[in-house]
Amino acid sequence: MRTVTYGAACSLDGFIADSDGAVDWIHFSADVEQYMSEYWSTVDAVLMGRRTWEFAAAQGVGGEPGSEAGPAPEAGSLEGSGIPAVATYLFSRTLSQAPPGTELVSSDAVDFVKTLKRQPGKGICLMGGGELAGSLFEAGVIDQVSLNVHPVLLGSGVPFFRDLKGRIGLELTESRGLDGGCVLMVYRVRN
Amino acid sequence: MRTVTYGAACSLDGFIADSDGAVDWIHFSADVEQYMSEYWSTVDAVLMGRRTWEFAAAQGVGGEPGSEAGPAPEAGSLEGSGIPAVATYLFSRTLSQAPPGTELVSSDAVDFVKTLKRQPGKGICLMGGGELAGSLFEAGVIDQVSLNVHPVLLGSGVPFFRDLKGRIGLELTESRGLDGGCVLMVYRVRN
Repeated sequence: MRTVTYGAACSLDGFIADSDGAVDWIHFSADVEQYMSEYWSTVDAVLMGRRTWEFAAAQGVGGEPGSEAGPAPEAGSLEGSGIPAVATYLFSRTLSQAPPGTELVSSDAVDFVKTLKRQPGKGICLMGGGELAGSLFEAGVIDQVSLNVHPVLLGSGVPFFRDLKGRIGLELTESRGLDGGCVLMVYRVRN
Repeated sequence: MRTVTYGAACSLDGFIADSDGAVDWIHFSADVEQYMSEYWSTVDAVLMGRRTWEFAAAQGVGGEPGSEAGPAPEAGSLEGSGIPAVATYLFSRTLSQAPPGTELVSSDAVDFVKTLKRQPGKGICLMGGGELAGSLFEAGVIDQVSLNVHPVLLGSGVPFFRDLKGRIGLELTESRGLDGGCVLMVYRVRN
């Protein structure tokens, strides 16, 4: 079964972008790049909702795995960059046409992800900040949560976690400091 | 100048109690007790708003320093417990009488805390979860943030951070794993 990871860089108060959409506070360093590179090597599919897609597209390609800092690399577009090509699934009930580099999913998101997880392949990255994560959490199809907590309070903005209907247990699998006062925390979801 | 610390045990999604006020998910262990004991030895004053007081009083005395898990020990009430007595300042514009063990502050909270910080004494603990923290953050009188992040998503509840008007920089001063998959993160506030 493929693993679905929900991840992002976030502020200590849990925002992945400020109220103006700014992500200038995200710190890039050699150890973050190494972590990203290792993470992307385990992934061949990316999931995101329409709003997250629009936001990510506006930010440009690249950035933290699963974060607001950019959509996943388009298949075949980043040869030689060290970032593997991935399939990008864009969930929307309103779009009629898939933007370039994406596959449009207008069917039930939970059913789609359950089917995708059973197919052969590598890990699946769920982009942070969208409403999609809530329904996928509640359906028990998210396996891992990864946060790179930055030393800043943004005060308001795009929350990484939105209200869930119930409590979800986690198991800490990794925790370590990164350059710039960041703390990486990785959890297995107790589904 | 005395140091004001804003701290709590919280869920990964930033709540210090669930929507029913439950804190049954908070994990106590020898290393948390040691951290708490060391922390309380540096503190001789506690600040909280009226709602936090009511919530804390309902939970009973004791628990995580600066958390929802209980009000600070009442002066003189915990001799021999290893927990030092502290002064508890309760901020309220509506209460006319101080509950037992507290000093009522109905004047401007920022001015009061600025004056308190200049007086001789040990550290000052600001209890988590109240609206008081927002105005004190914005006034630049909070010096330190301490979080014991628990491996759970509560989904909804009492948030540790409430919306601030602006961005506040932090400096990570400590980060380490605690028993039970908890992660302690301590920050200096860049005021």
